[in-house]
Amino acid sequence: MDYETPQFYRVMQYAAQADRDVVDMVSGSPDWDPPATLRDGLRAYADAPADDYQYPPSVGLRPLREEIARRRGVPVEQIIITNGAGEANHLAMAGGFEAFGGTEILLADPVYPYYAGRANFLGAATRYVAAETDGQLDPTALRKAASEETSVIVVNSPNNPTGAVYPESAIREFVAIAEDCGALLVSDEVYDHFDYSGEFASALDVDSEQRIVTDAFSKTMAVTGLRVGYAIITDDDLRDRARTRHMLTTVTGSRPAQYAVAHALEATPPSYYSGVRERVRGRIDRLTDALDSIGAEYTDPDGGFYVMARFPEFGGGFDDVYELIDAAGVAGMPGAAFGESFEDWIRFSVCTDRVETAAARLEAYFE
Amino acid sequence: MDYETPQFYRVMQYAAQADRDVVDMVSGSPDWDPPATLRDGLRAYADAPADDYQYPPSVGLRPLREEIARRRGVPVEQIIITNGAGEANHLAMAGGFEAFGGTEILLADPVYPYYAGRANFLGAATRYVAAETDGQLDPTALRKAASEETSVIVVNSPNNPTGAVYPESAIREFVAIAEDCGALLVSDEVYDHFDYSGEFASALDVDSEQRIVTDAFSKTMAVTGLRVGYAIITDDDLRDRARTRHMLTTVTGSRPAQYAVAHALEATPPSYYSGVRERVRGRIDRLTDALDSIGAEYTDPDGGFYVMARFPEFGGGFDDVYELIDAAGVAGMPGAAFGESFEDWIRFSVCTDRVETAAARLEAYFE
Repeated sequence: MDYETPQFYRVMQYAAQADRDVVDMVSGSPDWDPPATLRDGLRAYADAPADDYQYPPSVGLRPLREEIARRRGVPVEQIIITNGAGEANHLAMAGGFEAFGGTEILLADPVYPYYAGRANFLGAATRYVAAETDGQLDPTALRKAASEETSVIVVNSPNNPTGAVYPESAIREFVAIAEDCGALLVSDEVYDHFDYSGEFASALDVDSEQRIVTDAFSKTMAVTGLRVGYAIITDDDLRDRARTRHMLTTVTGSRPAQYAVAHALEATPPSYYSGVRERVRGRIDRLTDALDSIGAEYTDPDGGFYVMARFPEFGGGFDDVYELIDAAGVAGMPGAAFGESFEDWIRFSVCTDRVETAAARLEAYFE
Repeated sequence: MDYETPQFYRVMQYAAQADRDVVDMVSGSPDWDPPATLRDGLRAYADAPADDYQYPPSVGLRPLREEIARRRGVPVEQIIITNGAGEANHLAMAGGFEAFGGTEILLADPVYPYYAGRANFLGAATRYVAAETDGQLDPTALRKAASEETSVIVVNSPNNPTGAVYPESAIREFVAIAEDCGALLVSDEVYDHFDYSGEFASALDVDSEQRIVTDAFSKTMAVTGLRVGYAIITDDDLRDRARTRHMLTTVTGSRPAQYAVAHALEATPPSYYSGVRERVRGRIDRLTDALDSIGAEYTDPDGGFYVMARFPEFGGGFDDVYELIDAAGVAGMPGAAFGESFEDWIRFSVCTDRVETAAARLEAYFE
């Protein structure tokens, strides 16, 4: 995989060069505003004394860690603030791959491509477990794929790209599988504020030293560019590894971003989160209504920003996506970019205020 | 080395628990203000549209890279914005260790402890070249230590902890040694704005694909907590490695920090830099005057924030430093924390507005 020009750039470039107007449903970056309180936090930081411009602790600003600890119900010592969920996942996967025996990292297919990229980067082999057609990850299938060669299992709920929210029973079983085969479960919960089912279950609710929860404010507060995430690590050895790797590779995260997020966590009213969630959900509903009327198959999202769809007599490769750009004026991501099991599908992100236009265009094209 | 509680914390904790007032000359974090323009940049970012809160390019914001390219006289493509000089050094050392044959990383002694920590973290053996008593690194000694086992050589000018500024002839020879033994020269120039000798030479001035220059705005703009640094990498393969590692470990740096630094680079008058430099130099002069009157040996700094001093009939271990805290009310860093060749010395940082008090206390104690 070529990480410098990730596959979604290919699609976005094609769309940018198209002869017509195209609705961008490729990117997963929120197109809505961060909380006003976050901007207030940045303004307050701009006036802060000189001392506040120097290194924060390597593990992150204490008030931010304390607020996260309170909300997630864990001791503050277990929290490391990272450069987004990306670094949190890297620290967790790298530490788990070192600490547990085994040559393999187990991933779901379709997969968020960076998990695969990180596994390759670590020199780990990857083994994939195909998701069900509704996007769920069957614990029985995961258990069948796990072995003593498994060092790390990465799961993501609400899921990118399928929108599945794994039930508590599945999360519990994923942790049990990690324990049974001597591996680490990494549970990436970065879309946790976008659960439409009320069924979201955190791996934190399963008591185990063999699970690490990663998360970030990138989606929750619409600030993918601030790079504020965290890992919650219960096991002392895994936590030491993550702290050392963090200190020697990035030293510490950026302070104005941490400061602003800490302020926003305290001051943002619940209506911000519910308002954004309802808006995203409304967009998903509009898109799935169109898919219904077209007669397309789709993973009905319980959470997240994405819908995977399979159109009648239509594929999910780059050529199909290009055709949809040219003929319908809608750009999605080829399912083939996420693995093999959904290669006839196309992922649509609803991070655009033009979902209505896109839905109407798809209806016109496929009907 | 225990990176979670770095050695300087031990000294700072001891100082904090002392029964008396202690001048902190341990930390290298500037105690002065960042440019007002940098605060203006943060305020402007606080008002920026929602789009500006999303992922910047992985290699960094284009205007920031362009301004650095202009100032350093290199093509913009060679620049990767990193999470401080720390990440830049990590990317350079890790990539060099992978790309060049050899098991060793060559470092100066006394050494900035993070270089040694990063080498250990990469699984590299370390070989040290003792600096001269004036803090200079003799190219002949470096050449003698280099071999086909050398994969990376790290130099730092102006130097932490000695204050030495390496002359152009030495920098040129360091690059030649790297080329001759099939290794990478990493030149960390993070103190480049604090050259009092007018003799500072950048490794950029030596045309070679076997050198990487690392730098940051942490010291230049007194913002160690913003985490904005960069690497300049001429060789295509080394640059690809750094970009991939950067993308898969941290994804990208924090955007408000990059935005604010870009604004400050454009808008800060030269008087800010010269004013800060003269202030630091004045503090160094006051300290070295005291050392002269005491009859202490010291590395007369040509640059940077630090003075290494050896007092008559006094050591440079933790016990000596603790004695100086209790008896004189001045806290420095044990020379032993930086290696073997200066283990009878103590490093004093002038990142405090109480250098006058410290100088007077040292004079009173040693005279």
